[in-house]
Amino acid sequence: MTYCLGILVEEGLLLASDSRSNAGFDQIVEVTKLSLLPLAPDRIVAIQSAGNLATTQTVITMLREAFGGGDPALDVKACKTMFEVAQIVGEQLRVAIAHDRAFVTPYGDPGASFLVSGQIAGHPPRLFQIYSAGNFVEATDRAPVLQIGETKYGKPILDRALTSSSSLEEAAKLAMLSFDATIRSNLSVGLPLDVLLYRANSFSGASLVTVRSDDPYWVALRESYSVGLKGLIDSLPPPPQLWRPIDGGSIER
Amino acid sequence: MTYCLGILVEEGLLLASDSRSNAGFDQIVEVTKLSLLPLAPDRIVAIQSAGNLATTQTVITMLREAFGGGDPALDVKACKTMFEVAQIVGEQLRVAIAHDRAFVTPYGDPGASFLVSGQIAGHPPRLFQIYSAGNFVEATDRAPVLQIGETKYGKPILDRALTSSSSLEEAAKLAMLSFDATIRSNLSVGLPLDVLLYRANSFSGASLVTVRSDDPYWVALRESYSVGLKGLIDSLPPPPQLWRPIDGGSIER
Repeated sequence: MTYCLGILVEEGLLLASDSRSNAGFDQIVEVTKLSLLPLAPDRIVAIQSAGNLATTQTVITMLREAFGGGDPALDVKACKTMFEVAQIVGEQLRVAIAHDRAFVTPYGDPGASFLVSGQIAGHPPRLFQIYSAGNFVEATDRAPVLQIGETKYGKPILDRALTSSSSLEEAAKLAMLSFDATIRSNLSVGLPLDVLLYRANSFSGASLVTVRSDDPYWVALRESYSVGLKGLIDSLPPPPQLWRPIDGGSIER
Repeated sequence: MTYCLGILVEEGLLLASDSRSNAGFDQIVEVTKLSLLPLAPDRIVAIQSAGNLATTQTVITMLREAFGGGDPALDVKACKTMFEVAQIVGEQLRVAIAHDRAFVTPYGDPGASFLVSGQIAGHPPRLFQIYSAGNFVEATDRAPVLQIGETKYGKPILDRALTSSSSLEEAAKLAMLSFDATIRSNLSVGLPLDVLLYRANSFSGASLVTVRSDDPYWVALRESYSVGLKGLIDSLPPPPQLWRPIDGGSIER
């Protein structure tokens, strides 16, 4: 399983992906699910992947190999907008699935999905989610979070606390808590995490970090949150007397 | 959609179910998903339901109509253990699905699942989850929580804070927070909630309450938790300098 998270805030983008791949519980490997396409000074494009690993690797490789080739149907370097980048990823996903579907389906699902994000000079950062069908949706200031893979465990903390006006540092903190919730509840999502804080107009992926289980910030954040949450829960009021069991009562519904 | 939660702690059982039923977003009704079978002084049996409403209502009705009839294959009142009760529910579910499957499948899934819990005098309280196939698993002190329906959003808070030695009041608090997370993230799970705190050896369902959106405890708990959680998140350390974007960097992966 996989969990990839993209957050679009006013200051930029926060991207985070786990790196566990498994074909059954006894074949677990570490893979990179957050790729940066070769950088050009006027653009940065990040792609996060979930689903069939053969399909996602094929799509990423096709995008890399076409980069700078000048073919407007394939070359992300030739795109004028991030919308065009998302279109190319969707089209390449359709090509890859069409090529493999008949052969793969007897063994499993050839489908995949992507988060495509980044910035092209002259435009603000943008964030898209590409479905297996090759179509896509875009994050907005009202819906600044997109997720693929094992999305549910990590959603409540984001729903509660994140808005498009959150700072990048807040977004990073919440993203780590969202991964913590997911990893505690689903063994098939695992460390290390690839995390990128992208500040708008920096056109730099230099702050991409890999967070391992002994990362001091990860350890400190989880511990502080756990202790703080236990204290918070203890401080909440108990249910009222009305809810308490009464011996010898009788009810039928 | 549905969310039903059962928690088995040393002091007894905490059961909670939402009550929204929908066949599409424009046909939303309120249904009862937590049923108490007619009480006998020596036993209490609660059944929580998820899945196809026609199927779950049929099963509950069959159980009610057989209650006290003395047929050992059907009558929950004749059961010597809660394990036998779970077996009867599983068998009746198989009967209901076998009867309807061929007719219902063209329109949707006839499947359903249940949480079956309660106590028979002389034994401790027990809690089972019945699958659509009619087989079942039982909660233990190491795995004291069972959930059916929309289970994921509300799981992290339970994973973090609940154990089988939690008090019933703690279990009730955590159950409400689990529902709060679920309801915020999925519109198709909705109030009111039916909540039962069952204290072991009380053989009483008298404390069954219906929690509506204006319930003072529900309102106060959600508000205190929201405010407290925001404060907790603010108090957590920001990501280290290493993670911060650096202008003009360049990286390729």
